[in-house]
Amino acid sequence: MSYLLTGIAASSGVAIAKAFVHEEPDFTIKQKEANNAEAEKKRLDEALAISRDELTAIKEKAFSELGEDKAEIFSAHLLVLSDPELVDAVKSKVAEESVTAEFALNEVANMFISMFENMDNEYMKERAADIRDVSRRVLGHLMGIEVVSLAAITEPTVIIAHDLTPSDTAQLNPAVIKGFATDIGGRTSHSAIMSRSLEIPAVVGTKEATKQVKNGVIVIVDGIDGQVVVDPTDDELKTYEEKQAMYAKQKEEWAKLVNEKTLTKDGAHVELAANIGTPKDLDGVIANGAEGIGLYRTEFLYMGRNELPSEEEQFEAYKEVVERMENKPVVIRTLDIGGDKELPYLDLPEELNPFLGFRAIRLCLEQQDLFRVQLRALLRASAYGNLKIMFPMIATLEELRSAKQLLSEEKDKLLAEGVKVAEEMEVGIMVEIPSTAVAAPQFAKEVDFFSIGTNDLIQYTMAADRMNERVSYLYQPYHPAVLRLIDMVIKAAHAEGKWTGMCGEMAGDEIAIPLLLGLGLDEFSMSATSILPARSQLTHLSREELADFAQQALMEDTSEAVEQLVTKHYSIG
Amino acid sequence: MSYLLTGIAASSGVAIAKAFVHEEPDFTIKQKEANNAEAEKKRLDEALAISRDELTAIKEKAFSELGEDKAEIFSAHLLVLSDPELVDAVKSKVAEESVTAEFALNEVANMFISMFENMDNEYMKERAADIRDVSRRVLGHLMGIEVVSLAAITEPTVIIAHDLTPSDTAQLNPAVIKGFATDIGGRTSHSAIMSRSLEIPAVVGTKEATKQVKNGVIVIVDGIDGQVVVDPTDDELKTYEEKQAMYAKQKEEWAKLVNEKTLTKDGAHVELAANIGTPKDLDGVIANGAEGIGLYRTEFLYMGRNELPSEEEQFEAYKEVVERMENKPVVIRTLDIGGDKELPYLDLPEELNPFLGFRAIRLCLEQQDLFRVQLRALLRASAYGNLKIMFPMIATLEELRSAKQLLSEEKDKLLAEGVKVAEEMEVGIMVEIPSTAVAAPQFAKEVDFFSIGTNDLIQYTMAADRMNERVSYLYQPYHPAVLRLIDMVIKAAHAEGKWTGMCGEMAGDEIAIPLLLGLGLDEFSMSATSILPARSQLTHLSREELADFAQQALMEDTSEAVEQLVTKHYSIG
Repeated sequence: MSYLLTGIAASSGVAIAKAFVHEEPDFTIKQKEANNAEAEKKRLDEALAISRDELTAIKEKAFSELGEDKAEIFSAHLLVLSDPELVDAVKSKVAEESVTAEFALNEVANMFISMFENMDNEYMKERAADIRDVSRRVLGHLMGIEVVSLAAITEPTVIIAHDLTPSDTAQLNPAVIKGFATDIGGRTSHSAIMSRSLEIPAVVGTKEATKQVKNGVIVIVDGIDGQVVVDPTDDELKTYEEKQAMYAKQKEEWAKLVNEKTLTKDGAHVELAANIGTPKDLDGVIANGAEGIGLYRTEFLYMGRNELPSEEEQFEAYKEVVERMENKPVVIRTLDIGGDKELPYLDLPEELNPFLGFRAIRLCLEQQDLFRVQLRALLRASAYGNLKIMFPMIATLEELRSAKQLLSEEKDKLLAEGVKVAEEMEVGIMVEIPSTAVAAPQFAKEVDFFSIGTNDLIQYTMAADRMNERVSYLYQPYHPAVLRLIDMVIKAAHAEGKWTGMCGEMAGDEIAIPLLLGLGLDEFSMSATSILPARSQLTHLSREELADFAQQALMEDTSEAVEQLVTKHYSIG
Repeated sequence: MSYLLTGIAASSGVAIAKAFVHEEPDFTIKQKEANNAEAEKKRLDEALAISRDELTAIKEKAFSELGEDKAEIFSAHLLVLSDPELVDAVKSKVAEESVTAEFALNEVANMFISMFENMDNEYMKERAADIRDVSRRVLGHLMGIEVVSLAAITEPTVIIAHDLTPSDTAQLNPAVIKGFATDIGGRTSHSAIMSRSLEIPAVVGTKEATKQVKNGVIVIVDGIDGQVVVDPTDDELKTYEEKQAMYAKQKEEWAKLVNEKTLTKDGAHVELAANIGTPKDLDGVIANGAEGIGLYRTEFLYMGRNELPSEEEQFEAYKEVVERMENKPVVIRTLDIGGDKELPYLDLPEELNPFLGFRAIRLCLEQQDLFRVQLRALLRASAYGNLKIMFPMIATLEELRSAKQLLSEEKDKLLAEGVKVAEEMEVGIMVEIPSTAVAAPQFAKEVDFFSIGTNDLIQYTMAADRMNERVSYLYQPYHPAVLRLIDMVIKAAHAEGKWTGMCGEMAGDEIAIPLLLGLGLDEFSMSATSILPARSQLTHLSREELADFAQQALMEDTSEAVEQLVTKHYSIG
């Protein structure tokens, strides 16, 4: 008899294939004592060398198949491998306590892991995960445990795992890995994000997939509705094959829209743009028919390195993006660092509430040298396409005016130096702080556009950290207060003849889209893979008809009531 | 020649007296080695015993003169003195390393201090300050250093200090200590808060008072404008004596208003209420003519102890307050714990952003047993006066409905048990989360009143931690967005025939008061010592005239522009 597991839909589509249960090897250390310290150190060095080769190969594969930011995870892993603090500690332990290399490594790694995990800081917690991942790789070599490589799978397979680490997902070959299901994780966990990049169906957070699924059994992963069917009946197989075919047909329909403008049923044009992290992401953007870049996060240029990127390096990156987008609009956000995103070489102070702290424009206006370099690079790149600058975390008009002043100073300097700069360049702000949404009428007079950053706007509006599981129920994109703020922002912009975009996750959300269209949003920026489904959805919606409907939603009591209102009228989900 | 120091006005009034420079004793340990461990341990025990007696006396003095919550600081200090972890560590060190008691104590205390200081948690940082304060007291006794007791001062004096610790301020006798000035601190630092409780003029954050002032020189502390004049000229003395006399006269004028209702120039009645922490604060409340309690924070009942307070204990506290207020309204806020306020016995998880975390109503709705006990105690006390219940940190209507449901269940149970409960009791919410301000029209239908908690509302609206100095410039009560939110809340309440109060610091602020009156605020709740000045100010203001003025302020660009608008029209400051 078949068995049904329910989880969280992480990546759309239906996969049907034999299961491969990716089990955690048993890393219990059997041998503690060792008498020949030199021999143990040699074993350690060998295991480190093999691990280094493996990681270098994985990193290269990740770079070419998944892009620069995914590959950086493995740069971090390679750094762990050559971290003298860790390696020396293991060797000292081996020598002083007469223990095996694996015993010493396990002890030292656990010490570092628990130290980093106890730090109240997301960046450090990620370091703990890196050390765990790397030390297991080395332990495997030391203990002769065959850590099954997912890269070795050659026939159509669905992976079942407790969770998938960065090393795991980077090895998945989308030609044979049809889908996966995990016990833990949520829509924004690492494995979920990877499944969407790879465009393979995935269900996460099933709680017990690894318990219920045996190797080799047929499994259906329904990434549309978040279900996993184990050992399906013939009827179930037939049903899901139909669902799979329908989804494939839908994807074909979507594919036809690649080169189309986004037009609503009543003929209004809205712009569907993509969010990117590095120029590497442009292939996906172009393949999915984005009409522009609504958010280019420049943080990756600054991360995973030991010093600030030079003006030249930044200029090259920005120029590449505007050139490849061929005069389509490219909104580049200035550095949004601080908060949960740290740069070790900037030596920022620890903060009690980093999300309410010294970050983004607050930091850039104080560390002006750093900021001016970025502004110069942006200005220079503006000569090569349709570049727009956007400032993050603006809370007051004074901040906006200071940032514009610095931009204008750098522009004048460049012109005086005879450097080419676009004559006209739009300058806008992220609306992600409640004060800015509420005072939008004042801001609209002094910007060229707004882009609503819903991820942060929602967390501040609800006073609930979106990364904190205990209050994640308060992350409510459809809360009438959130919709009212969006309404205020769009109205204020239109009153001054300016446009409003949105670059948070909400912009690509099926339930939010009818509401946002009705409120008059001009540009929707989302992950590249959401663009075609959104374009398809929008062709069936009428802006004019939805205007009253959206105003009605603002008057609802709760987020749930809004959601019901939309699903009832638009048979979504 | 005289010398002028500028700082932050911490407590109003003008003090003129001889300076006493409170210097930090030199705690450099001169003798490290010691051979007789038993003798050292005995010396330690003696020093601990004397310190304990001193602290017990200070605690009693603080309790009778300053109230329960101030006295609790010393309960914490007494706990440090008898902490076996600390005392045993010192004794072990003495025995194992053959060192003096002072050397060992200094080492152990510094270790604990740096450990607590490095924790990313305000509660733990306060523990570090406690340990520093207590260990210096004990060190003083061990080293024969005469730590000058401020309690011993018998003639009119102005204290000049780098900073004043809780032990220091608790010893100040307001009959002879005319004022003080410190090098460090801000308006909300411990010493500033104490100066307002003691009603003595104070200027904090002068940066260099201890450098510029010599013992015995005449000093003027101008707590109205935040200035310190060292060694004043005769002309200066005359000027400040006049300022002092004017302030005294003003205080007399204020005193006449103690038993008056608060009536504006155009005859409108607004309610001036007080914020309290414990029943002990009621003397000051009554002496300053409060028309009610606008905020009774119930956290102190839960703090500085090892287990939850019983229903009976809570009932007695609430009953005492409503009875002593003699049918004047008493708004009691249910437990607002979590965030920076921790209860060790609740074992709450560490959070990355505690201000955006699991606290207040979020915690109470999950830990219902704890919450129901408080609701029962409140319901029982409601029979003895005019008690109103207020829920903190409400972000959604679902939360409000759940809280009201629990309240109604407990009311029914009490009635079934034959316990007396008020027939009608108003139930309201704090408006301190932007979502609730924006969705106030929806909330107004389901509450009896709103109380705007500006301290939190401002920090969430501006996305800036008000305790974080690097972003404290964003704590802007006059930001047009903050005023717009307040306007929305008051309008929504009035549309449903409900009233709106305010219980943040802003309610007692001279510049905010004309704006709040113009926006239609019904109740202003503040620290007791601000009530009479506010009442005096309000008698000169007309609600009707200010209505348009306040709407004009909402349209200003910046916080600074609003402040200028008010000061220009009302010659404040």
